[in-house]
Formats: sequence, C-alpha cells, structure tokens
Amino acid sequence: MRTLAKDIPQTARTKPEEEARVSGWVHRIRDMGGITFVVLRDRSGMVQLVFSEASPPAADLTLESVVSVRGFPALNERAPGGAELRVTALEILSRAQPDLPCQVNGDIARMGIETILDNRILSVRNPRIRSIFNVQAVIIEAFAAYLRSQDFTEIKTSKLVWGGTEGGTELFEVAYFDRRVYLAQSPQFYKEAMVASGMERVFEVAPAYRAEKHDTPRHLNEYVSLDVEMGFIDSERELIELERGLLAHIFEEVSRKNAADLAAWNVPAPSAEAAAKAPVIGYEDAVRTANEWAARDRPASPGASGGARIFDINPEAERFLCEWSLAEHGSDLVFVNEFPRRYRPFYAYPSDANRTMSFDALFRGLEITTGGRRQHNYEAFVETLPRFGLRLENLQNYAALLRYGCPPHGGFAIGCERLTARILGLANVKEASLFPRDRRRVEP
Amino acid sequence: MRTLAKDIPQTARTKPEEEARVSGWVHRIRDMGGITFVVLRDRSGMVQLVFSEASPPAADLTLESVVSVRGFPALNERAPGGAELRVTALEILSRAQPDLPCQVNGDIARMGIETILDNRILSVRNPRIRSIFNVQAVIIEAFAAYLRSQDFTEIKTSKLVWGGTEGGTELFEVAYFDRRVYLAQSPQFYKEAMVASGMERVFEVAPAYRAEKHDTPRHLNEYVSLDVEMGFIDSERELIELERGLLAHIFEEVSRKNAADLAAWNVPAPSAEAAAKAPVIGYEDAVRTANEWAARDRPASPGASGGARIFDINPEAERFLCEWSLAEHGSDLVFVNEFPRRYRPFYAYPSDANRTMSFDALFRGLEITTGGRRQHNYEAFVETLPRFGLRLENLQNYAALLRYGCPPHGGFAIGCERLTARILGLANVKEASLFPRDRRRVEP
Repeated sequence: MRTLAKDIPQTARTKPEEEARVSGWVHRIRDMGGITFVVLRDRSGMVQLVFSEASPPAADLTLESVVSVRGFPALNERAPGGAELRVTALEILSRAQPDLPCQVNGDIARMGIETILDNRILSVRNPRIRSIFNVQAVIIEAFAAYLRSQDFTEIKTSKLVWGGTEGGTELFEVAYFDRRVYLAQSPQFYKEAMVASGMERVFEVAPAYRAEKHDTPRHLNEYVSLDVEMGFIDSERELIELERGLLAHIFEEVSRKNAADLAAWNVPAPSAEAAAKAPVIGYEDAVRTANEWAARDRPASPGASGGARIFDINPEAERFLCEWSLAEHGSDLVFVNEFPRRYRPFYAYPSDANRTMSFDALFRGLEITTGGRRQHNYEAFVETLPRFGLRLENLQNYAALLRYGCPPHGGFAIGCERLTARILGLANVKEASLFPRDRRRVEP
Repeated sequence: MRTLAKDIPQTARTKPEEEARVSGWVHRIRDMGGITFVVLRDRSGMVQLVFSEASPPAADLTLESVVSVRGFPALNERAPGGAELRVTALEILSRAQPDLPCQVNGDIARMGIETILDNRILSVRNPRIRSIFNVQAVIIEAFAAYLRSQDFTEIKTSKLVWGGTEGGTELFEVAYFDRRVYLAQSPQFYKEAMVASGMERVFEVAPAYRAEKHDTPRHLNEYVSLDVEMGFIDSERELIELERGLLAHIFEEVSRKNAADLAAWNVPAPSAEAAAKAPVIGYEDAVRTANEWAARDRPASPGASGGARIFDINPEAERFLCEWSLAEHGSDLVFVNEFPRRYRPFYAYPSDANRTMSFDALFRGLEITTGGRRQHNYEAFVETLPRFGLRLENLQNYAALLRYGCPPHGGFAIGCERLTARILGLANVKEASLFPRDRRRVEP
C-alpha cells in the first residue's frame, strides 16, 4: 500500500510503529555527512525522507529520479509539514540522468519562458508551474458543471471544416484525402446548429485554431475554447447574465479548490460576488471612459492632453476599462456591449442601423470573451451578406440553419488559457497552455 | 416566463386559471376542421396545443417553424402526457420553409444514414436521434466525474504534432505557416508526459484523427477519444480494474439519467454490476475461445469444422468473445490481455519475450478500448527501437520523457462514439457522431 506524501503527518501520529511506503520524485538532496535529507515529491505534495546509517545508502540518488521507499513515519517539528519518513528500504524505479535541462526545484522566475516550454515534462514538476494546470482543470470542471445545472447539453463537434464561417482568412489548411479542409476557428456554426436542432442550450470544450502570424503574450494559434450557445433569448443581456453566473461559479470553485495554487502565485482569489454584479458599459461609453482613464493615468504624456487617443476597444482600452471597473464598481470583470456593426461578423444581430447585440467580457485587463445574439432570420441574413462581401452560395450550410426553424439565439466563448492566465496574473498566455503552438513552436 | 413542455401537466393541475407561455418547434399539425391540434416540441419534450375558434388562426403554421404561444393549461386524458395548452396567442419566431429535406416527426428507420448525416440540424430534432447525444453527454460527464473522484487531473494537449508517435502512417498533414505538422492520432505522448511531469494521473477528452482510407461502420476519421493514463502501476491488471470501475460508473449514470433514451432504442440498460466483474482472458485463450464459438455458431459451414479459422482478435472474434462472455460470465464487457508484441507498438511493456502487458476491452461485440502498461525504462526503450524499424533521433521527445525520471505507468483510451453506439445498438458508429468525417464527408 502506497501512502501519499500529504498523509505522512497523519500516519506519523496514528501508526508510527508501522512501516509506510511512499513513491515519487527526488525533489531535493541535502547530504549532511552521516545523514542525508531527501525531499520526495508526489502528486499530493512533498515529504522529507531521512537516510541515516541504518538506511540503505542514498549516495546513488539523482535529482528527479523516481523512487519508492519504505520507512517509519515520525513527527518532527523541524521537518517541512511536521513529519518525516525514516527510510528502511529504497527502490529506484527510474534513474534520472544528471544533465537535467532545467532546474525543477528552483525559482521559476529564473527560467525563461522558452526553457519552461521546451521542457514541459520537467517544468510542470515545479509546484508553482503545476499549480497553473490545477487551476485550469477546475475552470473546465466548473464551466461544465454550471452549464449542466442550467440545462445545457455538452456537445462535441468536428474541427475539420469545409471553410471558415467568417470567411477564409486565418485558417490552417489540412490535406484531407484528395481535398483541402480547414481547422475550425470556432464551433460557431455547429453550436448554432445544435441550438436550432432542438437542444436549445449547448456547450463545448474543445480546441480552436487561429492561423494568426503575430506572436504576442495574448495569442495562441491553438487554444481551448469554452463555448456556450442558447436559444430563446431577446438580447445579449441574457447572455451577459448567464456569463456573470457562470464566472461567479468558476471563481467560487477556484477560490475553494485552488487556495494553495493561488497562494503560490501570490494573487487574490477572483471574486464571485464582483463577477455576479459586473458592470455593463456600452461601446461608445467604453471608448470615452478608456480615454478618460488614459488621460488620468498619464496626464502629462504627449498626445493624452489634447483629446482622445483611444479609438477602439484595443488592448490598452481593455486595461483602462478594467481599472475603471475595479475603481468604480469594485469588479475586476466588466462587460462591453453594443459593438458597432463594422467590428462584428455578419451573423451579429443588429440592435439598430449601426450597433449590434454583441459584447466582450474583459477581466483583469484582458478580453476573455466575445459573444452576442446572432441573426436567426433568414431574410435578414440574406440581405446582410453583400455588406460583408459574402455570397449566399458559399454559405449554404448557414442558410439551411436559418431556413427550417431557428429560434432567436446567441452565445459566447471564453478563452480557457486567457482566463487561467488572468486569474494567476501570468505575463504570457502561453504559460497557461501545456503544449502551446505558435509560429515557431510545434514541439514537444 | 416560459414554461417547458414537460411542466404543462403540473401547471394544468396547479394553475389552470393562469396563462402559460411555451416556445418550441411545430412537431405535428392535425387539422380537424374547426379545431387544430399542434404538437409543440422543446428541449424538454412535447405538449399538445389546441387551436379552436377562440384562438388565433393556425393555418399559417408549417412543420418545424419556431413559435411562442400563450394559452391556458388544461388536463386532458386523451392528450399525450395528459395535458394540453388551449391557445390564446401565437407568435411565429421563425417560419420553416415547407421544403424540409427530411421528415423530423417520422420513423428514422425510413431515413437512410446519408440523409440523417446530410441534415443534422433537422435529423437531431427527431427525438430518437436526439437521444443518442443525450447518452453521449452523460458518458462524457460520468467519465470525467469518476476519474476526478480517483484523483485524476484533466488535461488539454495539442492536436498539432510534429510527427506520429507510432510512425508516420495514417496522419493528416496540416500546412502550419511555413512547415508541415500533423493532426494527433492520440494524446499518447502527451498523457505519458504529464504522468511523468508529476501529475501521475491524468485524463483528456478531445478529438483524435486517423487518416484511414477504409469506410466501415466501425471507423471514423475524427473521433472523440476518452483518454486515461496513470503512474505507479505494476501491470495492466490495475488499468483493467480502473476501467471496470469507470465503465460501471458510466453505465450506472446512463441507466439512471438516460432511461427514456434507452427506451427510445428499446435496449436494456448496460449493467454496472457486470462491468465491475467483467472477465479477463489472455490473447491465446481468446483466439481459441473465439474459434470454439465460431464452430458452435456455424458447425456446418465450410472451413469451420476442420480447425481454427480465426487467427487474431479481428471483428469476428470480437463478436464471438462477447457472446462467450455473456453466456459464461453474464457480462457484455470482456477484457483481452497479453497481446503479442508483434501486434503492439514499441512502447508496449513486455511481460515476456513474446507478450505485452496490454489489453483491449470488447463491449457488445466491438472493441471500445486499447490500453496497457508502457515502457518507462530508457535503456529498454532504446534497445527495442530497431525491432520496430524506429530510430532514436526521430524520437527525441519520447526519449526525454524517459531520461529524467519516469514512473512505471500505463493507460487506455475509450472511443466515445463506439461506446455510445454499442450502448444503444446503433448499426454504424457514424450515427453517434454529430458531424462525422469520412473520406467523402466533410460537411456540414
């Protein structure tokens, strides 16, 4: 029977006279002459092993080797966690070569991001890096659980598509037998189709692809998209209400289950209360507010004094709007709605001649969601296409979706890595992807 | 406030004097002269609407249009479900064109599979087809929930890979900026990497790709793979034990939550008790048993009498082994282990010179899982490569996985569509994929 590292203090209290067995990785070795202290790391945490003269020799051990040891658990105030294992038997299950390409037990601030990503098998062993993916797993779990509680059905749709819903740009091409298909940029069409298929409320957790050439701390060419779509809505307001509740639940779960992970990054727990009452600001007001805060931020900087210098909800505006929301509404989450038609795709539902029922969610300075109500009326859809330079004959599947009974509907998507990164305050979204892909990186 | 169709009987009992509003699709129209009965379908079920002379005219309605109606709920023994809504107001939210390409309210046995797949937006509206995806959603939910309860961490890994773990065959090529990458056949390497990264126990739900040219009722070119990997195991027996518990939990949840869906397909609930004690049979015994059952099945057929005619666990053997398991062990699930090395990839862990610690799971006549313990020893891995015609320089990422401390480990994958199809007795696995991809089909 294996005991987990985290349970050794308890075992030392209740069964000190029985040998226990622990297995894991050699995290640290401190040779004190006659005695060697080894920190063993397993999936649950760490425990100190004590090799004395009565133990098998520890001289053979290398950092990151996988071992299984037996020994007597003992309370020791000076040991991390208050207990240790006094080793009586040692088995080396896998000897690590000493040329480790990165230092697992060190400070990750000293590892560059390229080293971290080049060596995922080793870098994820670092408890602080591991904690990123503990948070991510809880985000995905809470996302699905909340939506199921609201009567949503989980769907899985194809990532191989005949073309992009939003035109043919920024698509990766796949050689599919004797033809060309593309990797889906989003499950947009499919989730709308499943709402119209009578499921009404659907969600999907799946990869999405953007063949964008630029390499920024905000972008991934492959990311995990947390997608939601629902029928029988009147406007984007119901979607914002849904996302407030959804994020509040995710934040609650992360606060509850990832306290140690948040502590490892020294960040406050995201506030469920603030998310549940996050403000909504119209696009025009948002641009004005961003400019006001920009002026306030750098009153003496050139260009800031003489009027507006932010003309869109760009990354700079996102940061200022989040500052504004936190200061004025106590919320690090803010929704911007009423985006102009020129910034939204053809399927965005117009609220008037110039505006759409669409929105973004900004969280801690970064856009994490785009969403909105979609056009469900076939005639209006056909009429709109020329404005976007699109042709009906290229959108036959979309047309079929609207021709045979499609309820008013809308949805949104949350970028899973972006949300993870903003919760933990990571500088680069790639840190929140186990195996990120960018223009240069396709390994490991 | 919208009332769901399933709640109308209750509303008719408790608030018959209040108008209720229901929304959904026009499933059936029966014009009786002065009175028209319309069956409305929403995500929860169906309800009968009654249009009398006091109601707005129903003449405009077309099948599959989306409507919102108000009316008084009333108990009526002759109505399906025992209640109906007597309509006072009608709003047509989306008028369906009358040229429906398939009949939603008919018998799906009359729809060919190509019609079903060509018209997913309509065919999924058929309650029987919809039920397939209700079952699938529960499978995915139960899979994740059980593994979390066993301390597994959910991971999301890249589907764009530099090459296939198992060599370069049957891969789809992706044009990735100025280079070529491939769609992952499985997350095999990544899940092993995350076990070795200290997560120890991981699972992933994600698409997987096989560029197999043959088009059979068993194969999909894109499928949802339910992947599991765990560290610190001694043999495949622990994996089989895990999968027994996992499938038992999935079957329990499907039995509990999908009773109506199982009834729609007239199939028995899969037995959790049988799964929990499913038999394990070695490869050689399995081949012998399959031949015995083949001979018993068709004693007079040519070739069957004169000795063995099954030489491998092929689809025919899978069917006979499941018959044997059901007859002799009362289980529609059976595990075959000890597969010969020649049938398994290089990373399969050898139990002796000829056999490996690997296994398949067969369920109701079909292989739904391949798995096994993997090689974790670097020297043994290097030694094995030439046997498989592989070169170390092409497997550097795999080598790094084993060089720096890798615990004994193994795992398995369940084909989500195959499991769904076998639970419901679907003839073709494509029926269990919302948007299946095969050599000819990439739309919708």
